[in-house]
Amino acid sequence: MRVIGIDPGSRFTGYGIVEEDRGRLVHIDCGVIVPPPKAGPAARLFFIQDELERVIRLNEPDQAAIEDVFYANNWRSALKLGQARGAALAALGRCALNVSEYPPAKVKQCVVGHGRADKVQVAEMVRILLGLPERAEENASDALAVAISHLQAGGIDARLKELAK
Amino acid sequence: MRVIGIDPGSRFTGYGIVEEDRGRLVHIDCGVIVPPPKAGPAARLFFIQDELERVIRLNEPDQAAIEDVFYANNWRSALKLGQARGAALAALGRCALNVSEYPPAKVKQCVVGHGRADKVQVAEMVRILLGLPERAEENASDALAVAISHLQAGGIDARLKELAK
Repeated sequence: MRVIGIDPGSRFTGYGIVEEDRGRLVHIDCGVIVPPPKAGPAARLFFIQDELERVIRLNEPDQAAIEDVFYANNWRSALKLGQARGAALAALGRCALNVSEYPPAKVKQCVVGHGRADKVQVAEMVRILLGLPERAEENASDALAVAISHLQAGGIDARLKELAK
Repeated sequence: MRVIGIDPGSRFTGYGIVEEDRGRLVHIDCGVIVPPPKAGPAARLFFIQDELERVIRLNEPDQAAIEDVFYANNWRSALKLGQARGAALAALGRCALNVSEYPPAKVKQCVVGHGRADKVQVAEMVRILLGLPERAEENASDALAVAISHLQAGGIDARLKELAK
């Protein structure tokens, strides 16, 4: 099974594609979408969407996963995050992908083994689990983490823990 | 000039298309997009987007207008509104439309003549300005109001006031 994880944001939207191949996690692709900063909101949101669709067409994931939002500083930042999230989710809908949502603590639990891990610990565990030569960029790494969590939720718990030893 | 106004929401997204023809406001189309309630978030957001794109292809507006958000009950409702707004804005971006944003008070000012008008007053003035036989549905009416505001901001102030007498 091949999963695309998404970490949406108005300035940086991370994506990460991971495949489970006979119990092994294989890194397929990851990256960060950065819309042109001077474009208007509609053009920026379409840019996120269009890039995501390009990545999906290219890598043909079977399912999608995204972090649930459990906290926002204020309603203005929630609105902004919501807009990026809406553009990303609509792209997944356009590609007819099923989307699962995971709380941040669940993602940390899956990848690091406890729910209060920090960003660097998550990035480093993602690197180790996928056998990457170096840590991925922050948003790409977060996207890979949620893809891994979805694969683990799909039942490779035990094997992941083995890999993480 | 032909303008599409949008009133996005996760359950109801209104749209309204108005043309200015030699100083007269002409109602072209309006409606409310209601995504299937039982579908997942990605499918619902794509539904909003797809319907909006269909309306745009059909009516070929030159520009777009949307209400600015100036208030939200809490960050969760802002996130939800943001998602619908992001899907709608990305659709406008996909159709290469320029989008102008107007504060709610400005819309009320343009349509009714003062910034504290209530929903019914706005709907009734939209009806009168466009010569509709009856008031449009709430979200469609709000979308028509923001389209009218954009046309007025484009310089037909005086004529609108005349029509509104």
